[in-house]
Amino acid sequence: MAAETVEVFDTTLRDGMQVEGVSATVADKLRIAEQLDHLGVHFIEGGWPGANPKDVEFFARAATELRLGTSVLVAFGSTRRPMGKVDDDATLRNLVEAGTSAVCIVAKSWDYHVEQALQTTLDEGVAMVDDSVRFLAANGKRVLVDLEHFFDGFAHNPEFALRVVESAVQAGASHLVLCDTNGGSLPHHVEEVVAAVARHVRGDATIGIHCHDDTGCAVANSLAAVRAGARHVQGTLNGLGERTGNTNLTTVIPNLQLKMGFDCLPEGRLERLTSVSNHVAEVLNRPLNPQAPYVGSSAFAHKAGLHVSAIARAKDAYEHVAPEQVGNGTRFLVSEMAGRATISMKAEELGLSMDGAAVGQVIDDLKRLEHDGYHFEAADASLELLMRRATGWQQGFFSVESMRVITDETSGGEFVTEATVKVWVGDRREVRTAEGNGPVNAIDRALRDALVGAYPALSRVHLTDYKVRILDSSSATGAVTRVLLDASDGESSWTTIGVSSNIIEASWHALEESLVYGLLRAQRRN
Amino acid sequence: MAAETVEVFDTTLRDGMQVEGVSATVADKLRIAEQLDHLGVHFIEGGWPGANPKDVEFFARAATELRLGTSVLVAFGSTRRPMGKVDDDATLRNLVEAGTSAVCIVAKSWDYHVEQALQTTLDEGVAMVDDSVRFLAANGKRVLVDLEHFFDGFAHNPEFALRVVESAVQAGASHLVLCDTNGGSLPHHVEEVVAAVARHVRGDATIGIHCHDDTGCAVANSLAAVRAGARHVQGTLNGLGERTGNTNLTTVIPNLQLKMGFDCLPEGRLERLTSVSNHVAEVLNRPLNPQAPYVGSSAFAHKAGLHVSAIARAKDAYEHVAPEQVGNGTRFLVSEMAGRATISMKAEELGLSMDGAAVGQVIDDLKRLEHDGYHFEAADASLELLMRRATGWQQGFFSVESMRVITDETSGGEFVTEATVKVWVGDRREVRTAEGNGPVNAIDRALRDALVGAYPALSRVHLTDYKVRILDSSSATGAVTRVLLDASDGESSWTTIGVSSNIIEASWHALEESLVYGLLRAQRRN
Repeated sequence: MAAETVEVFDTTLRDGMQVEGVSATVADKLRIAEQLDHLGVHFIEGGWPGANPKDVEFFARAATELRLGTSVLVAFGSTRRPMGKVDDDATLRNLVEAGTSAVCIVAKSWDYHVEQALQTTLDEGVAMVDDSVRFLAANGKRVLVDLEHFFDGFAHNPEFALRVVESAVQAGASHLVLCDTNGGSLPHHVEEVVAAVARHVRGDATIGIHCHDDTGCAVANSLAAVRAGARHVQGTLNGLGERTGNTNLTTVIPNLQLKMGFDCLPEGRLERLTSVSNHVAEVLNRPLNPQAPYVGSSAFAHKAGLHVSAIARAKDAYEHVAPEQVGNGTRFLVSEMAGRATISMKAEELGLSMDGAAVGQVIDDLKRLEHDGYHFEAADASLELLMRRATGWQQGFFSVESMRVITDETSGGEFVTEATVKVWVGDRREVRTAEGNGPVNAIDRALRDALVGAYPALSRVHLTDYKVRILDSSSATGAVTRVLLDASDGESSWTTIGVSSNIIEASWHALEESLVYGLLRAQRRN
Repeated sequence: MAAETVEVFDTTLRDGMQVEGVSATVADKLRIAEQLDHLGVHFIEGGWPGANPKDVEFFARAATELRLGTSVLVAFGSTRRPMGKVDDDATLRNLVEAGTSAVCIVAKSWDYHVEQALQTTLDEGVAMVDDSVRFLAANGKRVLVDLEHFFDGFAHNPEFALRVVESAVQAGASHLVLCDTNGGSLPHHVEEVVAAVARHVRGDATIGIHCHDDTGCAVANSLAAVRAGARHVQGTLNGLGERTGNTNLTTVIPNLQLKMGFDCLPEGRLERLTSVSNHVAEVLNRPLNPQAPYVGSSAFAHKAGLHVSAIARAKDAYEHVAPEQVGNGTRFLVSEMAGRATISMKAEELGLSMDGAAVGQVIDDLKRLEHDGYHFEAADASLELLMRRATGWQQGFFSVESMRVITDETSGGEFVTEATVKVWVGDRREVRTAEGNGPVNAIDRALRDALVGAYPALSRVHLTDYKVRILDSSSATGAVTRVLLDASDGESSWTTIGVSSNIIEASWHALEESLVYGLLRAQRRN
């Protein structure tokens, strides 16, 4: 018998962006949407067109640039204005123009908010929902309704809350999403209220749940709602969101799928969870909590010491699920078991022939470098160069004699950065100076200028992204800096890494490896 | 009618210390114990004497140095060895010698672990519990029993799990603490199992609950246990602990007390929660998660823009509890979407008198700067300086004539960075050069050196964190860089921001504002 489905509705790109200290570019949002589709959620809420010019741009670019295989893109908005008309309502027009097949509108279901915040009557509150759902449905949209403050509203005036529910269903809403907007509910209360709503809902509308983590129970509240009949769960990756965050989808999905027997993602997708979670954290430059259930780096880390061999023998007696099911892995903190099998498989993938000694060398290098702050998961090109070096290979494209970079602030307040590199290409010594709008830019220009005569293929290689993370923040600018550099030659792209207490040195190492890797690719093509 | 009590048992100093990356000194542990007593928990588990020499020292020093007003100190250990005798068991002897009035011992209640890990019979497993509890009770101790892997054990072999429970009760245990050691349980399962145990427990023994957060449900599982009859909750401050952490007491206590009507802490103590949580984070040098329910800096932060004035009017319609009840406070985040009301409220908070023109100026500045990549939500100090400037204020501490920073790579591969600053302090011109392990570090040293003669207070200001984010990454090293700099003077900390296409310029602006803000604070103190 096939398992019953609970739909996953991701609002990372809308509600998740309310988290303090994050602001994503449109390009970031498109990359996150790709990851969500890769994971296989049912719905991706992209933003609120109209409330925010960036979100208008997002939907315009999504229509041409995003190719979603699994997920349905959703535009968010609200019901019409009090005492207004649907035909000349800017919010509703923006929703229609966003061009998505589904829309989600927020509706007020707490009498207090209708009377005090909207300053209108309860009848008009219901009419706003009814009119707006009918208008959007008539425009060919699937309409999801987010019932804001539903649990507080139900506690204060259940009759009104249920009137709004019934009106939305009769107007043709596909989903009634009960929102714990202030996040103050506890699981037993959520379960009771959802059960009460389930008894009232007529027709084919699906009941959904949208929680916030203000009591630390967003995940448990969502599970309680599903037990009471909800079949649609809203949340964000990594629990991003205002205040304490929204329901963390990276926790609730495996709970539903592995422990409660529901289907949430298409077959074979759950094992992408850890990688997607990390990818999104990286795009937003917002480190993943190592303690995060299922996907955190500590989630399956055992400090057990003496018990490590017992754990290795009978993992299911010490781990609540097999970490591989969510794409994570067991870590033994006492002995860094880097895994010879993984290295050998990677070597095969790269077409490198590596003997046992070389594999051992790679494992030793990885241990040492990861201890220093390197992190090769995200830096495929640097990993490949490290593995090649373990086989005795050395890059012969160029060697650097010295490098200097100077930044001057003039008395006029202008900043000027200039770099000089001295490199050997074969037996030719090249000395070049270039200006740039920062140290990395200036070094990149000077080095490229010195090499492009001998290697014209470099003219096609360009840097596409540059990320900086400070590790061990306790000592601030004296701490270790990790730089990740993305580059592309127009056909493929690669990432290199540099780590040093000096940010210029870290950037320089990443840049040097990036160019070496680009030259290696060009060589292989010829 | 007085509310019923749920006891709080804190294991930050024992189980909490299993968290990856934390190691506390004995002095740290004593300071944390003082904080826990100040908060008013019932029990403080101090460690495992015998398993760890530091824990032996802790109990020795605690006996003379700690003056606990509210809490009872508990030593942790295990039952006697299989087939051993209580009289010559080192673990039990260490427990007695720790000198606490209460002890907590871990007992195996999953048949698999008795037979496989202990390699003994189920009868001997029960005898180990019975003997050990009687021995400790005969030595005058109150004996709490932690039933390890109870929920997994109950699922596999409920008869054996309940035999262990009954044996502990009959031997005189004061508490039966059901442990979800692997952390894999969900609330409805916990509620069922605790109810089943409650039906079996005879006598005065209290049922306790001890959860881990592997399903993101440790808090909800603890609440479910209380609903089923548990009256003792174990956990740690800030959810410290192995893997995903233990039950977070800073979440579960306010849930029980403010939402479920139980008494957990003595009257008037709940409002110490946020300060104790921050204090412990500081002692362990482990930043508090801003998203933490109740105690996090974002827990009551509102980004609402248009709705800020509505929130100010009716806070209980937008906040699930009054933040003052847990010693936290409402924060209004200022961003480009801020209205005049937000700015005026912020000015009031800062004690600035601003007229309408100044408020308008701030809004214009915010819009322009946020468009350029600034983000003031996270940079409170830069926001305050911006608002002060809108009132006509200018910093008169120093003015910069010029700045230069040079990074050299020698032919030996060494990187050396040196900065020179020329600044005016009043009518004195100061020229200073300093080396550093990177540009920001070198500039910080040179600038500080130039200013500290005139402003000795600067010697107390130090940088604590440095964050870099590249915006609009499509153009890579030609993109805009945003730098956030945290600083502290030992009493409070602040954040400044700098944005530029040149990372050195961005860092420089953040650094300059950081020092200005530090000087302003020092001036206000005098």
